Amino acid sequence: MPKSNKIPKKINLDYTASVLPNPSSIHEFGVKAKKKLQNSRREVADFLSAKPEEIIFTSGGTESNNLAIQGVVLAWHEDKKENKQEKTLPHIITTNIEHPSVLETFKLLQKRNLAQVSIVGVELNGIIDPRKIKKEIKSNTILISVMYANNEIGTIQPIKEITKMIRHWKNLIPSPLSLVRRGVGERCIFPLFHTDAVQAVNYLDVNVERLGVDLLSLSGSKIEGAGKIGVLYKRRMVKLAKIFGGGDQEMGLRPGTENLPEILKFSLALQSMQKTKEKEAKRLTILRNYFFYQLSHSNILTNFRITINGDLQKRLPNNVNITFPNLPSDLLVIELSSKGIMASAKSACKSSNIEGSYVIKAIHQMQGKTLYNSEIGGVRFSLGRQTTKKDIDYTIKTLSQILTKLKKWYN
Amino acid sequence: MPKSNKIPKKINLDYTASVLPNPSSIHEFGVKAKKKLQNSRREVADFLSAKPEEIIFTSGGTESNNLAIQGVVLAWHEDKKENKQEKTLPHIITTNIEHPSVLETFKLLQKRNLAQVSIVGVELNGIIDPRKIKKEIKSNTILISVMYANNEIGTIQPIKEITKMIRHWKNLIPSPLSLVRRGVGERCIFPLFHTDAVQAVNYLDVNVERLGVDLLSLSGSKIEGAGKIGVLYKRRMVKLAKIFGGGDQEMGLRPGTENLPEILKFSLALQSMQKTKEKEAKRLTILRNYFFYQLSHSNILTNFRITINGDLQKRLPNNVNITFPNLPSDLLVIELSSKGIMASAKSACKSSNIEGSYVIKAIHQMQGKTLYNSEIGGVRFSLGRQTTKKDIDYTIKTLSQILTKLKKWYN
Repeated sequence: MPKSNKIPKKINLDYTASVLPNPSSIHEFGVKAKKKLQNSRREVADFLSAKPEEIIFTSGGTESNNLAIQGVVLAWHEDKKENKQEKTLPHIITTNIEHPSVLETFKLLQKRNLAQVSIVGVELNGIIDPRKIKKEIKSNTILISVMYANNEIGTIQPIKEITKMIRHWKNLIPSPLSLVRRGVGERCIFPLFHTDAVQAVNYLDVNVERLGVDLLSLSGSKIEGAGKIGVLYKRRMVKLAKIFGGGDQEMGLRPGTENLPEILKFSLALQSMQKTKEKEAKRLTILRNYFFYQLSHSNILTNFRITINGDLQKRLPNNVNITFPNLPSDLLVIELSSKGIMASAKSACKSSNIEGSYVIKAIHQMQGKTLYNSEIGGVRFSLGRQTTKKDIDYTIKTLSQILTKLKKWYN
Repeated sequence: MPKSNKIPKKINLDYTASVLPNPSSIHEFGVKAKKKLQNSRREVADFLSAKPEEIIFTSGGTESNNLAIQGVVLAWHEDKKENKQEKTLPHIITTNIEHPSVLETFKLLQKRNLAQVSIVGVELNGIIDPRKIKKEIKSNTILISVMYANNEIGTIQPIKEITKMIRHWKNLIPSPLSLVRRGVGERCIFPLFHTDAVQAVNYLDVNVERLGVDLLSLSGSKIEGAGKIGVLYKRRMVKLAKIFGGGDQEMGLRPGTENLPEILKFSLALQSMQKTKEKEAKRLTILRNYFFYQLSHSNILTNFRITINGDLQKRLPNNVNITFPNLPSDLLVIELSSKGIMASAKSACKSSNIEGSYVIKAIHQMQGKTLYNSEIGGVRFSLGRQTTKKDIDYTIKTLSQILTKLKKWYN
């Protein structure tokens, strides 16, 4: 044994907990990790104007959306069971252009007999009419989920208007006691309002107080430098049930050792993004409008009868989405790629689905016309930090060349 | 517009998909990412002697365990519903010392009325008797989940024996057609066998063919250099239902953009670990036995009536777990930390649970004695790549000093 009594270098005899610092450990390494985790949680909360205990870290946007939606529905069932109340199914509402992690979760809950589902269609411009949602609300509606901005066509949904409409509904309707929990001030809790803000966070206001939402999802993979992690904001009064069985992490709502390195990266990336958010949104809006301008002043718009999908104004600053009739959008993306331009056909998140885009289909169907397969696809150009005017020029020029080449094949 | 026709630098107009390469994108960046993902999947499969399509990447060990257990149970319900068969609950079996991500998932399924649950107790040495599991198997048993090695006391469970017992049972019992699906060779599918190999992977054989398991969970956070990611091995014939609604990633079983950077790190870390696995297991076994030897030859064993938890031989090479009667293990861990030694009280994954360790409780209760609160805790010293004989010497010496100091307070 060593004779010196002085403290040597730190000795890690807690390899089993994790090879990375584990915030749940109570020793020095653990305490340091826990402080870092608490700091990050507070910083993310500040970014959203929320409280630290309202921030749940998850593995990504898909899990955040699932935890919000499944969590509310499962908590409702648990509550019912505890109170031994008559069990009618709860009702949940969403739109027909949500991300698959919302839309498929709604379908999953319906399939598993856990909820009644209403899916409301958006208008021709890819934007939901709050009055159409209002029409669907019933006394057993516990959740409304509407995305903040669409991942394919970039359209921005009227979140604040929907909040207002829901609050108005809550005040109007005498709350059936069997269906609501009452919080401070005897206000109805249901229906809760969730928004998937994964695509919105870089450019739009995500202050949860101003938005008035009860649940809001974020994903690190859409934020420069943030890495692979998800966040779910959950207003304090909202009761969620966990999806995973396991440890007590994340207020008991998300078991599993916290992904500390990615959480730290996420909070740093948020702060860095925050600094340039407004400026970057303006810059990209100008670039995007330049893209539109060049499209309409090149031969593309007239020669190829293309459609620009989604509202031209109420859309993300960085989104351009075009349907090329008679042309499979996958082919166009591959042609563009061979010229060095990375674009996307439909949503990259569900691209092995060869049925085309349900988002494009949803808005084109509003025109009442018969759709050909190639018309339910779209090519998405999404701009970012590195994008320049020169890139847009090259893209327009290349697009024109490709279309001219392909026209011979497709006409 | 630029006049030159030569291809410029690559232009990313797919920011929306992900700021990181997204393997679901069909352009050049996406194709490259997909190839990397495929390579990693094959490498992980090779490591386990599995096929690439049997590897599902998840967010971590907790999710892998949940996907295995909930996935089997939910698939059973979906199957029943499709076939409009009479719906008796399926039955699942596990042990009383599993990780919370298994044990709590069993309880969750029971609470949600999705499964009947049997929890079998381990023996005094922290090892399960396969005959006790066999006694619990019923005609509606669809899943048995037994961890490969325990996270607190390091005991190694007889996985191969349990496989043999299950196979024997399958051959003996005439399969009630309403309860089993039949695969190749008319073999019963149920009960399936899952093992949580999160703690075993660094030191034990995880060849799924030799183990004979149907499902096996791994976590990157226990492997040096692997980062935060999980793996679930799922034998091809096993039908799982997804937990999350969303995209088609991971054979439709785990929606959400793949965490490519972490997946790459994981497969590289596995290969690097593989190279030194045997040597490191031997080295740590010697160090661990040296720890035991020093304990029994110091004043600690006799003066403080400590108990070493778990079988002394059939345990992980890196695990030492001790109960100090009359001493709260949390306090001891903090004292050790102040001397630069990071150890763990109970399982770090559930350390906010102040009820003590259910694992230690499970083995001490076998002795039929009344337990005091402080006796259901344990201090875990888990050794790793950096641990040296000198570290053990210093730890034993420090431990002795702390105990002598605290004895005055606790007697």
